[in-house]
Amino acid sequence: MKESSDHTSISEWINSIENGQIRSLSRAITLLESTRTEDTHRAGNLLKESLARLSATERAPTIRIGISGPPGVGKSSYIESLGMHLLSLGHRVCVLAIDPSSQLSGGSILGDKTRMKRLSTQPNTFIRPSPSQQILGGVTHATQSIMSLCELAGYSIILIETVGIGQSEGAVADMVDCFVLLNQPGSGDELQGIKRGVLEFADVLLVNKMDGMTKSLAQQTLQSLRSTSQLINHSLKNYQVPTLGVSSTQDIGITESWQAVTKFLEQAVAEGFFEHKRKLQQEHWFQKLSEYYWLHYLQAARHTSSFRNALIKEIQSGKKNVIEAAQEFSRSLFNKE
Amino acid sequence: MKESSDHTSISEWINSIENGQIRSLSRAITLLESTRTEDTHRAGNLLKESLARLSATERAPTIRIGISGPPGVGKSSYIESLGMHLLSLGHRVCVLAIDPSSQLSGGSILGDKTRMKRLSTQPNTFIRPSPSQQILGGVTHATQSIMSLCELAGYSIILIETVGIGQSEGAVADMVDCFVLLNQPGSGDELQGIKRGVLEFADVLLVNKMDGMTKSLAQQTLQSLRSTSQLINHSLKNYQVPTLGVSSTQDIGITESWQAVTKFLEQAVAEGFFEHKRKLQQEHWFQKLSEYYWLHYLQAARHTSSFRNALIKEIQSGKKNVIEAAQEFSRSLFNKE
Repeated sequence: MKESSDHTSISEWINSIENGQIRSLSRAITLLESTRTEDTHRAGNLLKESLARLSATERAPTIRIGISGPPGVGKSSYIESLGMHLLSLGHRVCVLAIDPSSQLSGGSILGDKTRMKRLSTQPNTFIRPSPSQQILGGVTHATQSIMSLCELAGYSIILIETVGIGQSEGAVADMVDCFVLLNQPGSGDELQGIKRGVLEFADVLLVNKMDGMTKSLAQQTLQSLRSTSQLINHSLKNYQVPTLGVSSTQDIGITESWQAVTKFLEQAVAEGFFEHKRKLQQEHWFQKLSEYYWLHYLQAARHTSSFRNALIKEIQSGKKNVIEAAQEFSRSLFNKE
Repeated sequence: MKESSDHTSISEWINSIENGQIRSLSRAITLLESTRTEDTHRAGNLLKESLARLSATERAPTIRIGISGPPGVGKSSYIESLGMHLLSLGHRVCVLAIDPSSQLSGGSILGDKTRMKRLSTQPNTFIRPSPSQQILGGVTHATQSIMSLCELAGYSIILIETVGIGQSEGAVADMVDCFVLLNQPGSGDELQGIKRGVLEFADVLLVNKMDGMTKSLAQQTLQSLRSTSQLINHSLKNYQVPTLGVSSTQDIGITESWQAVTKFLEQAVAEGFFEHKRKLQQEHWFQKLSEYYWLHYLQAARHTSSFRNALIKEIQSGKKNVIEAAQEFSRSLFNKE
């Protein structure tokens, strides 16, 4: 009875997500982000149902764009301008944030929806700030799940904002169809605040603040970025990473930057790169989810295992050392067959 | 044969750590910090042997002191001054660093040993910068293991430096016998850069930079910190968290700050709090290590399981969704008995 009523309510919940009820979508995302053990089962059921529903219907895939850059480069402003442009093209736009620093400082990007004043008041737009706490098993599995829900809710484009400080770009690049890297105007040929390795994730390179006082500096940076970008060996064969200047405040280059993204996607689809990448991403997602459920088994055993309690007593009395005990405990739970 | 020769070499390795060979200790720490699967077994053996050796000999426990504070508060300078004082008292001093931001920026504390110029050239001192990469299963299990090796190497005091930005303090406070929190001189009664919750981890509160231009500001901060600290309900009964002003550059208050630490430790030992905390810490260490070995089982299965490959094919062909597959895979490895 319990199981069946749970099933019914989940099915209704998903109906209202599909019907565009923002509140139902928000509630579902909160459930997926929950770190409470008792939510795991329900979150799993919700997602299982959502994925079944997604695969049962024929629809064009929702395009996932990662947007990264160092703090202060103007990611929010760019996303706002790009979002407005996408709405004008008839898209429904979803903005998510992955903030590695939120684990440290309690969230710094998209913490305040009002930072995207124009975009946040538009219909056909959903803006979700970064989760307020670290998610068990890493942020990746939750973000991929959340993207699926947004897809179910009918958003045609998902923009994922992440701070580019060297840790999360790889994780984000591994979840999106196109990765856009915003660069800060800066003097000299050293790129400002961007780690070399991060450049290699980029499918499209932009220099922001191509306006006012920073215009000439931005143009210099664009030049130096162009020569650097020619050295990037992109995994899509014969693809030359484009570099463009934009001004989010002056709405300059926004259309062109989106054209660069669609041009990349067209070539990626044509050469099978798009599908290949999506398959790999599913495998990584599977891996992350397996780790997530795997850790839950250990946590569950933590509360029920009398063997564990016996081991801890042996450690504390000095009969066994902590390494042996931890190895014995995890081995005892592992099914070798 | 292999096993026995491995055993012999580990035993020799540990001998040279016990004999104070810095290079052997450094190599051992590098092994413990390694994220390579093939190093896990050897690291486990090394640590198992070390712990056995430690428990076989009678010695006074090595005291572990956590030192935290916001970026720029002068943790390194304070540790250097305190370290020099401890050496003058006849201690052998070890400095370790846990840097949560190193996962993001590639390391910011103790990255450069020369930041502690006086201390780093002293005998009886070992300074180890923070690991350059994130450690599987979190930094905690490795740091606790590393502390055991330092203990075996005969250091009587371990100072653990961590940046106080709201994430790692809890983890560090959970590994040490005394947690010292350094505060920045700042105007007003709002504490500068310290999160309220972090105060509750503190056993000793210090205001640094009690000198020169910042002296009067530091004195104000000390006053406001004193009234705040009276609200802290410390888990050691009847213990009032002391607040002191120090100047690392002028060597003011260093002796007094150490006296505050020893006074806390004496009361903690006398009331059984010290031992109680150590036992809890062992349980947490066991938990961290279990997670570590547990994830290794999953990783090993990743490469050998044909069931996993079959599941991934089913996901990619749309026969199964990723949630079901991940649940099935982790369940298949879990030994329910």
